[in-house]
Amino acid sequence: MNQVPNAAERAIRGAAAVEYFVRPKSVAIIGVSSKKGSASLNALANLVMNDYSGDIYLVGRSGGEIDGRPVLTQVDDLPEGVDLAIFTLPAAGVKEAMEACVRRKVRAVVSFASGFAEVGEREKQDELAAIARDGGVALLGPNCLGYTNYVDAFGAGFVSALKIPKVSAGRDPATAIISQSGGLMSHIRMGLDQRDLPVSYTISTGNEAGIGLADFVDFLAQDKTTSVIIVYVEEVREPEAFLAAARRARAAGKPVMMMHPGRGAQAREAVQSHTGALAGDHAVMRTLVTHAGIMFIDTIDELIDAAEILARYPAAPTKGPGFVTFSGAFCAIAHDFLEELGLEAPPMSPHIAEEMRKHLPSFATPRNPLDLTTAPVWQPDLMRLGPKAILDDPALGSLVISITVGPPAQALGYLNALIKAMEGNTKPVVFSILGDRSPLAPEFVELARQHRIIISRSAERSMRAMARVTFYGRALERSARAKANAEPVSGLPAFGPGAQPEWLGKEALRALGVKTPDGGLARNVDEAVAMAARVGFPVAMKAQAAKLAHKTEAGGVLLNVADEAAVRTAWKTLQDNVARAQPGLALDGVLVEKMSKKGLELVVGAKRDPRWGPVVVVGLGGVLIEALGDVRLLPPDLSEADIVAELRQLKTAKLLDGFRGTPAVDVEAVARTAAQIGRLMSANPQIVEVDINPLVAHPKGEGVTALDALIVLGE
Amino acid sequence: MNQVPNAAERAIRGAAAVEYFVRPKSVAIIGVSSKKGSASLNALANLVMNDYSGDIYLVGRSGGEIDGRPVLTQVDDLPEGVDLAIFTLPAAGVKEAMEACVRRKVRAVVSFASGFAEVGEREKQDELAAIARDGGVALLGPNCLGYTNYVDAFGAGFVSALKIPKVSAGRDPATAIISQSGGLMSHIRMGLDQRDLPVSYTISTGNEAGIGLADFVDFLAQDKTTSVIIVYVEEVREPEAFLAAARRARAAGKPVMMMHPGRGAQAREAVQSHTGALAGDHAVMRTLVTHAGIMFIDTIDELIDAAEILARYPAAPTKGPGFVTFSGAFCAIAHDFLEELGLEAPPMSPHIAEEMRKHLPSFATPRNPLDLTTAPVWQPDLMRLGPKAILDDPALGSLVISITVGPPAQALGYLNALIKAMEGNTKPVVFSILGDRSPLAPEFVELARQHRIIISRSAERSMRAMARVTFYGRALERSARAKANAEPVSGLPAFGPGAQPEWLGKEALRALGVKTPDGGLARNVDEAVAMAARVGFPVAMKAQAAKLAHKTEAGGVLLNVADEAAVRTAWKTLQDNVARAQPGLALDGVLVEKMSKKGLELVVGAKRDPRWGPVVVVGLGGVLIEALGDVRLLPPDLSEADIVAELRQLKTAKLLDGFRGTPAVDVEAVARTAAQIGRLMSANPQIVEVDINPLVAHPKGEGVTALDALIVLGE
Repeated sequence: MNQVPNAAERAIRGAAAVEYFVRPKSVAIIGVSSKKGSASLNALANLVMNDYSGDIYLVGRSGGEIDGRPVLTQVDDLPEGVDLAIFTLPAAGVKEAMEACVRRKVRAVVSFASGFAEVGEREKQDELAAIARDGGVALLGPNCLGYTNYVDAFGAGFVSALKIPKVSAGRDPATAIISQSGGLMSHIRMGLDQRDLPVSYTISTGNEAGIGLADFVDFLAQDKTTSVIIVYVEEVREPEAFLAAARRARAAGKPVMMMHPGRGAQAREAVQSHTGALAGDHAVMRTLVTHAGIMFIDTIDELIDAAEILARYPAAPTKGPGFVTFSGAFCAIAHDFLEELGLEAPPMSPHIAEEMRKHLPSFATPRNPLDLTTAPVWQPDLMRLGPKAILDDPALGSLVISITVGPPAQALGYLNALIKAMEGNTKPVVFSILGDRSPLAPEFVELARQHRIIISRSAERSMRAMARVTFYGRALERSARAKANAEPVSGLPAFGPGAQPEWLGKEALRALGVKTPDGGLARNVDEAVAMAARVGFPVAMKAQAAKLAHKTEAGGVLLNVADEAAVRTAWKTLQDNVARAQPGLALDGVLVEKMSKKGLELVVGAKRDPRWGPVVVVGLGGVLIEALGDVRLLPPDLSEADIVAELRQLKTAKLLDGFRGTPAVDVEAVARTAAQIGRLMSANPQIVEVDINPLVAHPKGEGVTALDALIVLGE
Repeated sequence: MNQVPNAAERAIRGAAAVEYFVRPKSVAIIGVSSKKGSASLNALANLVMNDYSGDIYLVGRSGGEIDGRPVLTQVDDLPEGVDLAIFTLPAAGVKEAMEACVRRKVRAVVSFASGFAEVGEREKQDELAAIARDGGVALLGPNCLGYTNYVDAFGAGFVSALKIPKVSAGRDPATAIISQSGGLMSHIRMGLDQRDLPVSYTISTGNEAGIGLADFVDFLAQDKTTSVIIVYVEEVREPEAFLAAARRARAAGKPVMMMHPGRGAQAREAVQSHTGALAGDHAVMRTLVTHAGIMFIDTIDELIDAAEILARYPAAPTKGPGFVTFSGAFCAIAHDFLEELGLEAPPMSPHIAEEMRKHLPSFATPRNPLDLTTAPVWQPDLMRLGPKAILDDPALGSLVISITVGPPAQALGYLNALIKAMEGNTKPVVFSILGDRSPLAPEFVELARQHRIIISRSAERSMRAMARVTFYGRALERSARAKANAEPVSGLPAFGPGAQPEWLGKEALRALGVKTPDGGLARNVDEAVAMAARVGFPVAMKAQAAKLAHKTEAGGVLLNVADEAAVRTAWKTLQDNVARAQPGLALDGVLVEKMSKKGLELVVGAKRDPRWGPVVVVGLGGVLIEALGDVRLLPPDLSEADIVAELRQLKTAKLLDGFRGTPAVDVEAVARTAAQIGRLMSANPQIVEVDINPLVAHPKGEGVTALDALIVLGE
């Protein structure tokens, strides 16, 4: 052991800290018991079986020897600066051992014990984390299942002892799995194994009292063996750090795939709640995580299927897939299924179709999906020409073949034809072999894998996975088009804490270039009369005070006030109504505005999730937004063109284009408004919520008007 | 050959005709060529290889011998009354051969040749069909791929020759496949093979010029070997006969599963079109087919997966599934996924949970999904107790287990525990083994199959299939609750052809007990004044004439007419407006009605699909129905309680229960109205369309009012 750095100099977070765990130069197992099947013996066996070449120390109260290795009776007998201590101690012994590790300048500790935050013992966990942090010890766990490094065949685990199959470092693209569930981790790993997809690391992060998800993603982003990162989480404890690490992985060209259950319950919440709360946490997370270049996945099948596509073809397509089949029935089924998935099968490019026509039998049509009919039975070269047409077609992003392959020789013939078609190809190719689970010859599978051809036994799974990957490709493009617009907004009024009165909210909107009705705040009745005269009758009059909750319900809003006399009466009425509803409340004054032209009512808002940050919310206004929950959540920096595309994804999007005689509305102006709200949220972290309800959209070219505006700051 | 019946006495349709095809006592192959690989030699080889024991005749121009069998040079040389002639002739020779078969009293002909309706040669096909029909010959095809009877090992096919694996007649429940696509047929068969599900018949029906889908379903409904019938169609040519046959299969306890692509395009159409046309053909078909007890399936995976459940457990569950797993992560994922599928995981019954609690480790909770945690590794009996709890629970309809099974011995231990839990069980059990495609020991698979345990490798596929089967069970219950209500409606007015004027439509509604606003038709202005005075001001006045299209656009509707003078002015205005819009049109008069109370506007309508019959359409009114396409299609005889359940499935259903201060509406009265419209459609086949738009729903208990009514008869 050489010079041991001080606590402050040791890495306790980030990729450097992870190194102590996955490639330690020395290991101590602390809490050793000689009982057969004990956690400590399993941990030791994992080192020995995998020919661990560093120093191994054992610490256990009983002392003595195990397999000829001396057992130290206390941590303090360890040499200074051991890289990794594996705690096979119950919760009760963890604190004391950690304190000793600090004294011995151990660099990293993994603790399997449960009995911490997951059972409500948050303080106990915080105390442990503080000791580690202050002592300069990197901590993994507690309540974790350990991890395996398949590159160096090193594993810290206590459940059983396994010979770790080594993956060739930096040669094959390999997939790493980080999981908060041990069960799912092994399931995912088995799924990858079966597809001959090498795994580089499996990591169970447990309670993440010290090191966690973000550190491992960071480590894997730099790891030269890992090309795809799979994350299963039930709680992202450090959203910002995680997103930053994911962006680094993305920059390194490594897809991060993420599963995080909980959308169901959150979806219900989202629909039930009000505009400001429409963005349930799970939906917000999904929006922002996707925008950070992470592929959000809902089901295990999709995870494995899409992981295989990305592991073999790192560049996700953005154009729709081309299909090759021998059956018209499959074309019909594919069309139906794609429509359900929301993915198009783009038409074949005319020059490609023209060329293909020469080779097809007269009764077949060159198009996408491409039905080769049964002709390939007699002309196997069609299985080169058909796939080649799809791969050559600039309009198509991937190739899905769905056929029955017949007897082994015929199957091999088709495969070889396909391989010829794939020369120089970079588009994902999935060969979905109908016939469900009928066995394929091992040499068939082998040959396909050599040529990066993905074999599938379910056309539906293939289509679903290809749709996922294609949507992911598009999300990456969209994120690339977004540009962080946190440019300060000049001319913003001075806000107090909490909810702002409407007149202040509207001042802010005007500073953003969002139109509000002509008018302004009147401090007394004469100002109100003058204001009304200036903007022209009829006017709307609204009582204004930051503390005036539910102004409509309080009788604080009067519309269509027709003339001067009516303004004077209205002034009195408003004061009386408010005094009755909230006695003693002092009004800022009354907002007097010209009644606006009618139009399509939308809602544009934003909320700041305390964990994930701001999202913009757009949807149609009125009862629709609540009855249908028909809103889109947008990252705050989305381009205006992409906001327009999102508006067109609303279930009620038809109403935007004019319907039953109403004119098409100025969708671009709506998008511009949403973009400005995004900018406001990005530039002003103190704003927690914005709600423009309604935003009236006028006919195309005539812009929008914000009829109401609520801006809420943190208290 | 015994007594040959006359043409009129021979069966050319139905189950009796199918018998000639699948179990012929004698076969003639017509169009024999000695060329190696010819269709005729394949057809012959199919007989010989499968030890066909009846007489075989060969007919071919060249004569001579084939394999020692004489070749007759013309059909007329055949003995009288051959059961089946297999035509391996090109289209050009089919007519002449059919004429000869009529002369020789052949009982059944299968013709493979293409070149008929599928390429536009409809007349040629009709001519062939007429010759067969008039001559008393049952015809299968043309343009079909033949069929295989796995019970007797008899096949009529020309593509290749195959040894047919015999299924044990009447012992194992077997599945039959009828398909209009040969490719899909072989795919489905392979899928069933791989699940060790015996197949009884595969039938390609081609153009169905004679015998078709309905005949085969009828035959299979009576066949003692077949227990599940799978149908793949792209066009149901005889909807009524098909539905009747499917009902007979249902009555025989045999599920009919049907795939029919085309929902995508039709869905688009449905959303674009108007109220009366909202029910696109595909959606209508799906509604009525499901109501007839057919299980409508969208994807191939679901078809195979659900077929396995129904083949092994003929009684489809109606209650939601219970889940058993070892991983909390799976519970979370299952909840999300089920919500997406629209299926609930019902809570465990309290007495079952109480019992289960005794056996679970203290940190586990007895509930559904049931997470056994990793405890079964040490207490394998939990794999008996957990599943038994689900199977014993009256609140749960099926059992889905989703676990990783570990090494073979452990896997077998779990399986044996499960088998113990299943004693006396009738609920479907799916054992979904996480780990994707990792191999299972053959003895494991064998043992599971012996005990009807369905093995799956994808939890998602299992859940999807169980959802399908459960929805199917519920659809059967719903159909059983429906009672055909075609009771004649007394008091209906006399209708002319085409669209009826509103006043006549409303008379019909009143005869059905549906409330309309107080008022009636005024033939002249004085009658209008009197009517208005009787019902009370303000009134609505609407010009009435069967030929008055778009009465609102024509200026033929005036609302809120306040007093007598206004009625007189309005009368004049209406006459002028209509005269301008449709010069020369004679009005029946003017409908004068009391203005109705406001309420929630719905649409209740019906249309008669020329092929599938009537469906009722319900949805919310106004722009919503068109912008969202948010309607439900209902069979005309649905019970009122089930109509209420359907109304609650509307995307906008929240509006029914009162929203933002509006009261909950009288959903039962809406359902009653829809049921009456169903009755009207069932009792009056001449009515092709009904449209009540809007039907105003008043607060709960206060009923509904039909503000407009359109009834359209066939021209």
